[in-house]
Amino acid sequence: MPTSSGNTAPKQDLSSAPSPEPAHAAHGPERLGRTALLDRFRAVRGATECLSAPLTPEDQMLQSMEEASPARWHRAHTTWFFETFLLKPHDPAYEVLDPAYDYLFNSYYQAVGPQYSRPHRGLVSRPTVAEVTAYRAYVDDAVTAFADRADDATWQACAPLIELGLHHEQQHQELMVTDLKHALSFNPRWPAIYPAPETQAAETPLGWQDFPGGIILCGHTGNLTEDGFAYDCEGPRHQVLLRDFALASRPITNAEFIAFMEDGGYCDPRWWHSEGWDRVCAEAWTAPLYWLRDGDAASPSSGWTTYTLHGRVPVAPREPVCHISFFEAAAYAAWASEQTVAGETHDVRLPTEFELEHAASGLDPRAGHFAGTAPGTRALHPRGARLDAEASAGGLQQIFGDVWEWTQSAYAPYPGFKPAAGAIGEYNGKFMANQMVLRGGSVATPEDHMRATYRNFFPAHSRWQFSGLRLARDL
Amino acid sequence: MPTSSGNTAPKQDLSSAPSPEPAHAAHGPERLGRTALLDRFRAVRGATECLSAPLTPEDQMLQSMEEASPARWHRAHTTWFFETFLLKPHDPAYEVLDPAYDYLFNSYYQAVGPQYSRPHRGLVSRPTVAEVTAYRAYVDDAVTAFADRADDATWQACAPLIELGLHHEQQHQELMVTDLKHALSFNPRWPAIYPAPETQAAETPLGWQDFPGGIILCGHTGNLTEDGFAYDCEGPRHQVLLRDFALASRPITNAEFIAFMEDGGYCDPRWWHSEGWDRVCAEAWTAPLYWLRDGDAASPSSGWTTYTLHGRVPVAPREPVCHISFFEAAAYAAWASEQTVAGETHDVRLPTEFELEHAASGLDPRAGHFAGTAPGTRALHPRGARLDAEASAGGLQQIFGDVWEWTQSAYAPYPGFKPAAGAIGEYNGKFMANQMVLRGGSVATPEDHMRATYRNFFPAHSRWQFSGLRLARDL
Amino acid sequence: MPTSSGNTAPKQDLSSAPSPEPAHAAHGPERLGRTALLDRFRAVRGATECLSAPLTPEDQMLQSMEEASPARWHRAHTTWFFETFLLKPHDPAYEVLDPAYDYLFNSYYQAVGPQYSRPHRGLVSRPTVAEVTAYRAYVDDAVTAFADRADDATWQACAPLIELGLHHEQQHQELMVTDLKHALSFNPRWPAIYPAPETQAAETPLGWQDFPGGIILCGHTGNLTEDGFAYDCEGPRHQVLLRDFALASRPITNAEFIAFMEDGGYCDPRWWHSEGWDRVCAEAWTAPLYWLRDGDAASPSSGWTTYTLHGRVPVAPREPVCHISFFEAAAYAAWASEQTVAGETHDVRLPTEFELEHAASGLDPRAGHFAGTAPGTRALHPRGARLDAEASAGGLQQIFGDVWEWTQSAYAPYPGFKPAAGAIGEYNGKFMANQMVLRGGSVATPEDHMRATYRNFFPAHSRWQFSGLRLARDL
Amino acid sequence: MPTSSGNTAPKQDLSSAPSPEPAHAAHGPERLGRTALLDRFRAVRGATECLSAPLTPEDQMLQSMEEASPARWHRAHTTWFFETFLLKPHDPAYEVLDPAYDYLFNSYYQAVGPQYSRPHRGLVSRPTVAEVTAYRAYVDDAVTAFADRADDATWQACAPLIELGLHHEQQHQELMVTDLKHALSFNPRWPAIYPAPETQAAETPLGWQDFPGGIILCGHTGNLTEDGFAYDCEGPRHQVLLRDFALASRPITNAEFIAFMEDGGYCDPRWWHSEGWDRVCAEAWTAPLYWLRDGDAASPSSGWTTYTLHGRVPVAPREPVCHISFFEAAAYAAWASEQTVAGETHDVRLPTEFELEHAASGLDPRAGHFAGTAPGTRALHPRGARLDAEASAGGLQQIFGDVWEWTQSAYAPYPGFKPAAGAIGEYNGKFMANQMVLRGGSVATPEDHMRATYRNFFPAHSRWQFSGLRLARDL
Repeated sequence: MPTSSGNTAPKQDLSSAPSPEPAHAAHGPERLGRTALLDRFRAVRGATECLSAPLTPEDQMLQSMEEASPARWHRAHTTWFFETFLLKPHDPAYEVLDPAYDYLFNSYYQAVGPQYSRPHRGLVSRPTVAEVTAYRAYVDDAVTAFADRADDATWQACAPLIELGLHHEQQHQELMVTDLKHALSFNPRWPAIYPAPETQAAETPLGWQDFPGGIILCGHTGNLTEDGFAYDCEGPRHQVLLRDFALASRPITNAEFIAFMEDGGYCDPRWWHSEGWDRVCAEAWTAPLYWLRDGDAASPSSGWTTYTLHGRVPVAPREPVCHISFFEAAAYAAWASEQTVAGETHDVRLPTEFELEHAASGLDPRAGHFAGTAPGTRALHPRGARLDAEASAGGLQQIFGDVWEWTQSAYAPYPGFKPAAGAIGEYNGKFMANQMVLRGGSVATPEDHMRATYRNFFPAHSRWQFSGLRLARDL
Repeated sequence: MPTSSGNTAPKQDLSSAPSPEPAHAAHGPERLGRTALLDRFRAVRGATECLSAPLTPEDQMLQSMEEASPARWHRAHTTWFFETFLLKPHDPAYEVLDPAYDYLFNSYYQAVGPQYSRPHRGLVSRPTVAEVTAYRAYVDDAVTAFADRADDATWQACAPLIELGLHHEQQHQELMVTDLKHALSFNPRWPAIYPAPETQAAETPLGWQDFPGGIILCGHTGNLTEDGFAYDCEGPRHQVLLRDFALASRPITNAEFIAFMEDGGYCDPRWWHSEGWDRVCAEAWTAPLYWLRDGDAASPSSGWTTYTLHGRVPVAPREPVCHISFFEAAAYAAWASEQTVAGETHDVRLPTEFELEHAASGLDPRAGHFAGTAPGTRALHPRGARLDAEASAGGLQQIFGDVWEWTQSAYAPYPGFKPAAGAIGEYNGKFMANQMVLRGGSVATPEDHMRATYRNFFPAHSRWQFSGLRLARDL
Repeated sequence: MPTSSGNTAPKQDLSSAPSPEPAHAAHGPERLGRTALLDRFRAVRGATECLSAPLTPEDQMLQSMEEASPARWHRAHTTWFFETFLLKPHDPAYEVLDPAYDYLFNSYYQAVGPQYSRPHRGLVSRPTVAEVTAYRAYVDDAVTAFADRADDATWQACAPLIELGLHHEQQHQELMVTDLKHALSFNPRWPAIYPAPETQAAETPLGWQDFPGGIILCGHTGNLTEDGFAYDCEGPRHQVLLRDFALASRPITNAEFIAFMEDGGYCDPRWWHSEGWDRVCAEAWTAPLYWLRDGDAASPSSGWTTYTLHGRVPVAPREPVCHISFFEAAAYAAWASEQTVAGETHDVRLPTEFELEHAASGLDPRAGHFAGTAPGTRALHPRGARLDAEASAGGLQQIFGDVWEWTQSAYAPYPGFKPAAGAIGEYNGKFMANQMVLRGGSVATPEDHMRATYRNFFPAHSRWQFSGLRLARDL
Repeated sequence: MPTSSGNTAPKQDLSSAPSPEPAHAAHGPERLGRTALLDRFRAVRGATECLSAPLTPEDQMLQSMEEASPARWHRAHTTWFFETFLLKPHDPAYEVLDPAYDYLFNSYYQAVGPQYSRPHRGLVSRPTVAEVTAYRAYVDDAVTAFADRADDATWQACAPLIELGLHHEQQHQELMVTDLKHALSFNPRWPAIYPAPETQAAETPLGWQDFPGGIILCGHTGNLTEDGFAYDCEGPRHQVLLRDFALASRPITNAEFIAFMEDGGYCDPRWWHSEGWDRVCAEAWTAPLYWLRDGDAASPSSGWTTYTLHGRVPVAPREPVCHISFFEAAAYAAWASEQTVAGETHDVRLPTEFELEHAASGLDPRAGHFAGTAPGTRALHPRGARLDAEASAGGLQQIFGDVWEWTQSAYAPYPGFKPAAGAIGEYNGKFMANQMVLRGGSVATPEDHMRATYRNFFPAHSRWQFSGLRLARDL
């Protein structure tokens, strides 16, 4: 159970809500200029190839569940996105490489046309991985040539599409990692794909930071030039009424979660949503996804090991708990509310998405632990909180990066939200039912992809993302 | 497509938010006094028997899906509720009629003990319907005797439990009706169980009522004595920030919904949530639940008939559309936003639960069309809006009764919500995931069971409740 | 493990194969005469009502799986059979009671027309049980009147249809019992519907009777007048080549089956068909259907109890094991083949259907333990073998009655088999895939319904019939 | 409908039943000598590599259903077989390449140990295809070295294991082809993997060959030295009683099957087994597997195309119908029995496995159209019957090769059959439930793998093997 130590961080004045994006982001016209955008295009497209570099063609075929896709498909689909939304409508010189790709690599854009059955993506072996690589190069060349050739008016119209395509590709980079991890976990040899992390020190105590309530502004303005890129679902920017609240200084760790487990957390329906409890029973959940009790029971991890992209390893006590569902996050919070610390209990809960956004809005996303500039060259695994002077001084750690944090907010349209017209409008709005919002990004999130207004969403039972939790409480 | 006629209803002053309950409700100490409460006990218990009077023992066995229960079970379970939460813990003189009932008639209270498998409730033929009737009488007698005998302190403690038991039973009265309707719809002879309604007049035009935004109070105080009964999930009463909005003057009618259908509404993924579209395809939805196209295609109902508790009848154009899911309600709103009326389109949407509560808070629930004081003696079928002087003058019709209205609000805890300790705490909180809120009650809701703060909730795909929709829009 | 004591019963001369029916059966023209047939009509129809007499309307609604039907439906369907195949085509005076019954009560006769969905038979509460009773009386009267009125030629044509209808009804009597038992087993109060049996004595040793091989005749001639009634699938009578074989003197008992269980029989894939093992794992079989280990572990039944139609009772060691699938019967035989008795093992196996028919062909079916002449007035539960002078002298016991005996024969057409034209032809032939033959009848089989050529059939995993096993072996 | 022309082929004397194997097969000690057997070892192992040569690593990952396996797995599993049953128990010098392979590449041998989940075989990407190739080479070298080194006694004991391993591998060669075809059929680009066949001439008329009945010998002696290899389920050789019968001179062609389809064969429950009809409805069968109606409707194939391993092509009228289930074969026969040819109908049916074995026992398997000596270098697609002098003279064509022929015989143990002890005994016996026998081999069957006694078996609904039908009839 987390210890409680409400800190004395200076109260923030909410009347002048800060800009949702920190000053460091490259905004303004130069962001969408040809040079800058093409540089970014090459960097993002290259990062996808970095991630897939250690993968064999066989690895890239794996699809372990309907919700996941093969790496081969992710690499092709992100390419199809540029072909479909940029080159075909805007570049008269573009010649389609293979007309069949349209059907094979459309994901869910009904407005574009029919799609190959999602659960069967793993059943397509041709075009091969090498042909997909060639497709990527072909489209990369076409985009580059188009950027050179386009007149200014065309470029103005198209630069936002390229920007969108890059963010889209970054999302798929993360899914490629999580889908791959899920699929490889079926291999009893526990393949190690990416490097292992360095070992880490002892646990950091849990503190609290208080926030006074009031009317704040949340969401993104949608002004790409001024405020940088955001998905449509992040806006409109609007007023939100918050109450006084506190946030835990860091996510819940494996050690804390094991305490819940050892107290019978997975056996007691009291802590669970009704639907969560049905899942626990039907799927025999006894621990986070990928955990097995096959190690030394006397160890700090109580014998639990977990599958990671660097192989199966003992669960590290001070790392944030990861690969839990919303149901597990909520059950932990319900259980923690009943635990006595220093003779008293505290009602804790999951934060709302607005509380997290508000807390994050003054912080620099670049401080978060993300996938790195050459993704795949270091561990894709969350780290524990720091235990240093800065951390001791209070403040929030890991609000960006390491693990996505489940909120108690259902994914819903902001007031005044209206999806964009056409296929692009299918990006977000149609998923606004039966999904919960996660915030902050994870170690699998690409560098430079995160911002305070970012809304991720998954069904409440999903566990294959790098998802954890941070506690909140009322004041 | 609804016509738009923003009216000029006087703006309400939101700074002094009205009490959530109208003045007519019997509040204060007398409400929980022995005489008044026992009168109500007899009335509510009798209403259940009124509803089941036309049912044969065979009818009372029917269970057509896991979510539904046999009438026999509803009648026993509501009785078990008084036995378990009132008589066994508080009445030392009470002798259990049959110990096996505890296992058979517990619904989902994990804290009470194990429960007989819900999907198999229809597989229990003994105790028989007559034995269930005897069980009801036995517990009724015990409660009456207990009320006579209990000292004042005991009564003070127990009266709220009786109150809760009565509201619980009223909820099951509605479920008994909706579950029965679902089960009987499998009978190709279309049994008529309750009386048919009187025929109704022509369609009432759709108007709009505007509401200015601001911070309002929503939810119930939880003060039973002062403000009357409410479920725990209706509180705490708390501040909500609303924007300027308008509500349609009445729910969408069958005629309006048929326009959506005839425009290909069920065939166009553009209007649907992704998960809703999956349902449309997987379950081949082409119309609201219970509708069949087996009538005269040239009729006002375009040949559609619907199963009702008075048999299969043509769909009546001016009645509110009923037995639709949240997905269908949202798809209708998305489609309606694209329709041109008098040369312009209006973005319409589903209201939030707070907008509906705010609009309802000044209105008298007793004006709604509910199941009546002797339920089952008149039609259990929604009526159309009135077309009279009062209606023409503007204002909201049918905000209470006829059909539940889907909102865009996911069912979530209010700020500061904490479930009650023990089994009673399982009543609401554990369902706060993947459910959408409905407001206002329906024709199957018992008389005197509704209030402005009442939150009903069902999964987004559910269609077997009397559920419809009312449009809202931003100003 | 059964003891082996090959007896010295006189070898039968197979060259003159016996008639398939014993002399006692009422054959010849008188069998189909009006008086005799109407007597039998009344007796068989009355037996159905005997069986349903202790059932409440609620009991008659139960349908616990797709393969089973409610008692209410069995009573109506057997009535529909006479209406459809006798009265409607042959009695011009007949007036249909309710045209909707045709759709509701057709089982699977595609040639007659569409049928109400089988898995939903339990979802029809109207016509009520009382209306079904009235339907039975109405058709009974019509058949009686028709028999009085019909001219001789019509009677000649129709008598075989009545005969078929009576055998059809007798089959449904048995299914009504087995379906009811299955449904009632979901009731945790273990209802007792029919009387309990008298207690029985100690176990009878297992002996063997030898049979020399050769070409024998099997199957029925199809000559109703000469050889009595048989279903089409029992013919044509044809030559079968048998090898020398022996049959166990009685079925395997519960005590013997418990030995298999206690030796880990349900945990060892060695004994099982691959598909059987999949069932064991998927459905967690650890004992025959209806068995629970909730009794005294030191008892002769090792703590096993079983649900019977007289309530839940301890498993009786000397009764034949019952409610096992073909897979369990075959696994028992495989295990028994590896057991050492007096220092040696014997390959035992399930008999073929021809071996059982050949052994039964000289025996009197009336000696079997069947449901009795007033079914439901005594226990519907198999008895153990007798331990008396006759039994000690060798010979086969229980070849008829008590439990159906699984054979190793797949249900297949006999050489030259051709289904009858029209709907009647759907009776048997279309089920000749993925079914195994059982022989001999059970305690739930109506008196006077069995004969040596009778072929029952069920899928290999079925367990809800009164099915057991008798061992065979090669000589 | 096939034409009937009972020929006058000389009646065969059944009293001296022919040897089950033709004279050409290499029997006797030399067959199991080191040189001959190692030659065969290299040839069979090489044939597997021939088949997989055109496959990319991606292709070798595909698993499209639980019943099928990836090519990668087939190649490893057949290697594991030699390692597990030959090298590990018999070669003390053998060093296991990777202990994890035991778990990964065991198929269903419970006696060997646990197995990796069959439905998830497609989810293992490591060891890679290249590592599997190395595994094959490693084991090939070990077997060769072992053969050089083993003393005579060891060799005598081991040669039958090698023989079994080779036949096992040949079975998997066929499965590799059929599984691959099934998986590739999910690719909308219809990959062509193997060469296309040469075009073929017009249809060959259907004739009949008569066979007199009597007691014949069927099955294999099990004498490897004298009679060559056979699986345990092919024995014991035993007497079978046949009646007079006739066999069609060739399998049913696509043109004949299209006549059934065009007469509404897939829409009329009259022709179908009950379970077959359920399949037709549930899986919307309207044609054999892989057929689509996307061609020219005026063509001889009525617009039907089919997926083959040389791409999607029009259905060739005179080729044997292929990829049909037992249910479709039986429905065709039922329909054909009602067709009038020259004013009369003939009851036709599927043959028994014994009729086909008897007819095949005098014929040379080498005459059949199999996969060839370098499989994968020519079309893997069935050819039509020849229309030449020999064919006109009567006699049976294609009794071996082209398409497996469904029989009406359920797969059951022959009299006296007992599975071998240990893991090898799991090869056949445990599948003897709910499977139908097919005879004769197909174009995907390896050269030199077929014999008259060979019993293949699949569930009645299976369609992904190269399975067709030949009619039989009683005389």
